[in-house]
Amino acid sequence: MNQDYIKPDNWSIIEEGFDISRVKSSESLFSIGNGAMGQRANFEEYYSGPTFQGSYIAGVYYPDKTKVGWWKNGYPEYFAKVINAPNWIGINITINGEQLDLNACKKVEKFRRELNMKEGWLSRTFTATLQNNIEISVQTKRFLNLELDEVGAIEYSIQLLNSDADICFEPYLDSGITNEDTNWDDKFWNTTNVTHNDSQAFIEAHTMKTLFHTCTYMQSQCFINDTEVNLSPEIFKNETKIAFQYSASVKKGDTFAIQKFGGYLVDRNHDKDQLTEAAKNVLSKATSLGFDGLLKMQKSAWASIWEMADITIDGDMKAQQGIRFNIFHLNQTYLGKDSTLNIGPKGFTGEKYGGSTYWDTEAYCIPFYMATKDQNVARSLLEYRFKHLEKAIENAQKLGFKNGAALYPMVTMNGEECHNEWEITFEEIHRNGAIAFAIYNYYRFTNDYSYIVEKGQEVLIGIARFWQQRATFSKAKNKYVILGVTGPNEYENNVNNNFYTNYIAKWCIDYALENIVKIEKDYTGDYKRIVSKTGISEDELDRWKEVAENMYFPFDEERNIYLQQDGFLDKELITVSDLPKDQRPINQKWSWDRILRSPYIKQADTLQGLYFFEDHFTTQELERHFDFYEPFTVHESSLSPCVHSIQAAKLDRMEQAYEFYLRTSRLDLDDYNKEVHEGLHITSMAGTWMSVVEGFGGMRIKNGTLSFNPKIPDLWNGYSFKINFRNQILKVVIKQNETNFEHNGTQDLQILVKGKQVNITPNNPVKV
Amino acid sequence: MNQDYIKPDNWSIIEEGFDISRVKSSESLFSIGNGAMGQRANFEEYYSGPTFQGSYIAGVYYPDKTKVGWWKNGYPEYFAKVINAPNWIGINITINGEQLDLNACKKVEKFRRELNMKEGWLSRTFTATLQNNIEISVQTKRFLNLELDEVGAIEYSIQLLNSDADICFEPYLDSGITNEDTNWDDKFWNTTNVTHNDSQAFIEAHTMKTLFHTCTYMQSQCFINDTEVNLSPEIFKNETKIAFQYSASVKKGDTFAIQKFGGYLVDRNHDKDQLTEAAKNVLSKATSLGFDGLLKMQKSAWASIWEMADITIDGDMKAQQGIRFNIFHLNQTYLGKDSTLNIGPKGFTGEKYGGSTYWDTEAYCIPFYMATKDQNVARSLLEYRFKHLEKAIENAQKLGFKNGAALYPMVTMNGEECHNEWEITFEEIHRNGAIAFAIYNYYRFTNDYSYIVEKGQEVLIGIARFWQQRATFSKAKNKYVILGVTGPNEYENNVNNNFYTNYIAKWCIDYALENIVKIEKDYTGDYKRIVSKTGISEDELDRWKEVAENMYFPFDEERNIYLQQDGFLDKELITVSDLPKDQRPINQKWSWDRILRSPYIKQADTLQGLYFFEDHFTTQELERHFDFYEPFTVHESSLSPCVHSIQAAKLDRMEQAYEFYLRTSRLDLDDYNKEVHEGLHITSMAGTWMSVVEGFGGMRIKNGTLSFNPKIPDLWNGYSFKINFRNQILKVVIKQNETNFEHNGTQDLQILVKGKQVNITPNNPVKV
Repeated sequence: MNQDYIKPDNWSIIEEGFDISRVKSSESLFSIGNGAMGQRANFEEYYSGPTFQGSYIAGVYYPDKTKVGWWKNGYPEYFAKVINAPNWIGINITINGEQLDLNACKKVEKFRRELNMKEGWLSRTFTATLQNNIEISVQTKRFLNLELDEVGAIEYSIQLLNSDADICFEPYLDSGITNEDTNWDDKFWNTTNVTHNDSQAFIEAHTMKTLFHTCTYMQSQCFINDTEVNLSPEIFKNETKIAFQYSASVKKGDTFAIQKFGGYLVDRNHDKDQLTEAAKNVLSKATSLGFDGLLKMQKSAWASIWEMADITIDGDMKAQQGIRFNIFHLNQTYLGKDSTLNIGPKGFTGEKYGGSTYWDTEAYCIPFYMATKDQNVARSLLEYRFKHLEKAIENAQKLGFKNGAALYPMVTMNGEECHNEWEITFEEIHRNGAIAFAIYNYYRFTNDYSYIVEKGQEVLIGIARFWQQRATFSKAKNKYVILGVTGPNEYENNVNNNFYTNYIAKWCIDYALENIVKIEKDYTGDYKRIVSKTGISEDELDRWKEVAENMYFPFDEERNIYLQQDGFLDKELITVSDLPKDQRPINQKWSWDRILRSPYIKQADTLQGLYFFEDHFTTQELERHFDFYEPFTVHESSLSPCVHSIQAAKLDRMEQAYEFYLRTSRLDLDDYNKEVHEGLHITSMAGTWMSVVEGFGGMRIKNGTLSFNPKIPDLWNGYSFKINFRNQILKVVIKQNETNFEHNGTQDLQILVKGKQVNITPNNPVKV
Repeated sequence: MNQDYIKPDNWSIIEEGFDISRVKSSESLFSIGNGAMGQRANFEEYYSGPTFQGSYIAGVYYPDKTKVGWWKNGYPEYFAKVINAPNWIGINITINGEQLDLNACKKVEKFRRELNMKEGWLSRTFTATLQNNIEISVQTKRFLNLELDEVGAIEYSIQLLNSDADICFEPYLDSGITNEDTNWDDKFWNTTNVTHNDSQAFIEAHTMKTLFHTCTYMQSQCFINDTEVNLSPEIFKNETKIAFQYSASVKKGDTFAIQKFGGYLVDRNHDKDQLTEAAKNVLSKATSLGFDGLLKMQKSAWASIWEMADITIDGDMKAQQGIRFNIFHLNQTYLGKDSTLNIGPKGFTGEKYGGSTYWDTEAYCIPFYMATKDQNVARSLLEYRFKHLEKAIENAQKLGFKNGAALYPMVTMNGEECHNEWEITFEEIHRNGAIAFAIYNYYRFTNDYSYIVEKGQEVLIGIARFWQQRATFSKAKNKYVILGVTGPNEYENNVNNNFYTNYIAKWCIDYALENIVKIEKDYTGDYKRIVSKTGISEDELDRWKEVAENMYFPFDEERNIYLQQDGFLDKELITVSDLPKDQRPINQKWSWDRILRSPYIKQADTLQGLYFFEDHFTTQELERHFDFYEPFTVHESSLSPCVHSIQAAKLDRMEQAYEFYLRTSRLDLDDYNKEVHEGLHITSMAGTWMSVVEGFGGMRIKNGTLSFNPKIPDLWNGYSFKINFRNQILKVVIKQNETNFEHNGTQDLQILVKGKQVNITPNNPVKV
């Protein structure tokens, strides 16, 4: 944890001073992306210090052969890896023949890095004294254009401070790159063509096995003191790299600058044989707009996003910076334009975890996208799973399930499982529940039942079938039990009757049944199609009912709480506050057996159930469970603090809610879990949004009505957010003593505020 | 399973007919070894069909870098692998320039392989028609000398059946060999020197990392029609191979033969710089004895082993063949000469499982070696663990234990853990119990308390400390519980309160305490040494007592049985007999989660406890537990049938006992588990011995007295075995209606037969 490293600022992430030990962490924090591609904040110029080079193209992956100690039946053959793509940002620099390398300079001063979230660009300034005693002042700016999402732009300028010198910029493309995360050191890329003309260069390369064809391109322009100069580059080329050298003799005090345009084209969007031609078209558009024109577009595109998605917090700059950091990175990662994409846990900021899609998407991200974008974005995320239904059925078959039972993978790129620890792959089956819950959540929020009728119900049937088959009857308990699972708290493995899993399993069956009845009644044609396609029968539905009605839930009469799993009370119930600090994080200090037999909870588990199904429990029940479980929770999952923040707010424990809020919103900025160098926790960022809107704002949908129960941390003067509720955009401004609602839509909006009906007419602010 | 492949024979393993699909299985079954080295029954001549080449040197291993999907704290850095050693048996053969290759012949007939267990040699005969139409008759014989345990010998003779021909024998040494089992395709061997003189060749090579220095050597002699011929070989050599070519023009009807002597020397027994010189000395001894002289020694050495260790069975050849097969392979694997060695689960017959030492040694092998060898052999096996005590303490420290608590590794070569699945490495901790039990068992059998005083008690203290610290107090149960373990039944992982584990944990503490009291009373000097070395205090002993006296054991009141673990009765209790045959073996058909949530038991678990601590339970209790658990047991561990055979015999279920006996004794011969091609199940072979002596013979030690309760399967006319009990060798002959006891010792031996005292005076057979 490092609370004071990033400078507080309302709109920017700012680092001041050059600290070699922080380079990898900052590369993560200052990452940029535009939904189609993204990259860590690696330096453009050569850097010999510790660095983690990463540039990623959305949807481009490699199926890395599975690596295990001991093979188990049912393991997938491969693990889809997010892979480092060819480098297009590189600009090597020499000054009087000496290479600029911040790790080798005599001095680096006034180093400042800024990620401007309002406008969507990354800048760096510093002065450096090279070993040859030349002093320079450097300014760089870089962004990935949101609208022209195949285009990135860099401006890199060097002013000579103490003497004349020969400066050479060497912008290059390099497809001879590797991954940090690779199982067998496979070669991921095959470069097929390196071409150029006088000013442009192109590398065509495709991924091995998956055969994603790409073109990486660049074009550069040079300037002296802001005046464009036409320099003829020397061109160097080998099988995987091409570099242009632009050299100039520069006077002391003058500035030599380069603008580089580059990026990727992929065959998802272009004919694979026309990628270089397409890149030329893209470059023509980009250069005609120029760096400034592209930057203007960028500012305007980000302004539109912020217009809808911004949360303002008045009176607490760190909290403000935190929430914007989260919203910014979510929008850099996924914009909902392409329904084949999803939201990887590290986005474009690292390689860890591979794959792109976890239950994080359904449990955490969909609420954010649903409320801050057009509702088609959320629907598109649901359709992603509908498209994978067949593969989920095949996946369940591998594990012995039948008759169309579907088990969605724990991690996936294309619908196939690509995780391989038995306790996760085979046992963390609650993921199926979140996928069903998201369908319910989408309908509850949007009132768009057509999705369920057209697609969702088939998913719900596959999932219900899985749960019915997965539950077994315990004669001893005279109930259905679910044995051998890993719940959301991954610090327990192979437990019996995880409350959360059993509860969501029962709910999934109930919800699938409820919809079958409704569809049969109201959508006869669709009902016939669904019956014919899935082959459901009354007999089968009776088996579902039998399981759902007789599901077992572990319960402790003494404490009047549900137990996380069978046997939880046999543990040594020492709370986290009594755990020595030097033992934490326990996942870095303890062997796995010790973690497993401890009572410590990685993330909300029973409480996750009480979060999803809040209406099923009284506030007193929530309080009892919160009071029992939270003290054992180490929050070593990024997905943990947000749920706790929401529940603490609901319980009027605003101080605790605020603490959890800071922890979730500044998890990466302050590096709570000492791992930000590996990349950011993108999916949990949506949880931060929830902790403001659902936690402090108390937003819920109650019987189809938007409802708020506004609360505000003491420290804050006020905060605001917007919600796209059924295509009307409601702005909510919450202050210490009042809440203001306003929308510019076309129809009146009936909402509930602290349980009371309030009518908001268009363009007519209401104070409550 | 293939019950009719191996021909029944009292003393030999015989295969008739050449079946390419069986080659790898037969290579395992016909393996030879002499305790110092061993090898699969690979053909001497080139073979292009599927084969698993393996020759192994006792104690020579390579630390293969650990391979895991996901690293966990506490995993060992490496996994010690038994490694394939340089090939010294190879003899390539060409006839009129065509290579002899059984996979490429026009015809192979009269193929017969015999492993003569009485005399300790392997032979092969066949006739073959080559593609060039030459017909030959081949006879080979091979053995690894028991006394000169660095020496192996091969005789290979070819008779020309249908024409004259030029025959070339090319005996060679080859250190360019690889392992089938390797994590990263590391190079395991570094060859440093390949030398020769006119008749001898030597390859010096050392293992990478572990630096075991070895010399592999050979010398050959040729014969025509039994007359030695002096042929000058052509010599071919490269960096890792040396070959001598002996060629002769042979007449139709004549026989051309070669005798090859070879083997390994290791720097455990020789100066590493003098290995080639030492090999020359060995060769000089071997060639002066000659093939026939060496074979005579071999027969005599095996006769001595059989004299003590043989079990005869009259009237059931398959049973006779089975038990001798087991006794033979145990003696090929470990003879007790070298206390740094142990008994690998696959011996010298394969690479699977790596490491050499499992709890198999203490639980299964020690009783066999204790009763059929000098008692120092068993003591030496105990000392092996004493030598590893410091490393067991370090191992426990890695997992968070303190104050000298010892956790012995699951698998080891040198005392360090070299297994890496969390559910085994960290959780299959019952292994500690078997190590303590073996100390008790040794003392019970030999009455040699000096071992406990001198060494064993320190091991017992380390183990007791571990159990005391590992148990935690459950307020809910008001008892000490042991959470998160894997019991002997590895088809359950991370369960709570495995009965076997809890029971042996309590017993270990009790036994350590009992010995402390005894040593304090009777061995004051040793007591002081032990207290000073281990730092035990009254306080600590009180903590041990507290745990042992309040240990929890899961129990079902309704069935009046101990439960294998908490929650066992929640499973779907469908017996194995109701499981479709095509689902078995379940470990090859089912995903791991399905196995875990099933009730199926891999090997005796609760019943293993009732086996070890038989005196703690009534026969009725045993019966209830047997009747409950056996029907759920799939016996997919080689260690399972023997314990069940012993218990079935005790329960007078002789038919079932016999069935289990056949399954254990012919597990590999009949390939019950469809995996014999990977190697033999050496350690479980000791269980076969137990199932005769303890099962049918009913041998026990009761209050220091040797006791028998002889039973006999209906099919058998009689059976006999010998027991070295406290340095007197008792022969027991059991027939349908009588049992005969006889010993040639010096003192009277008081034994119990069916509970009645019987006195056996030396050289005076007694019939009961």
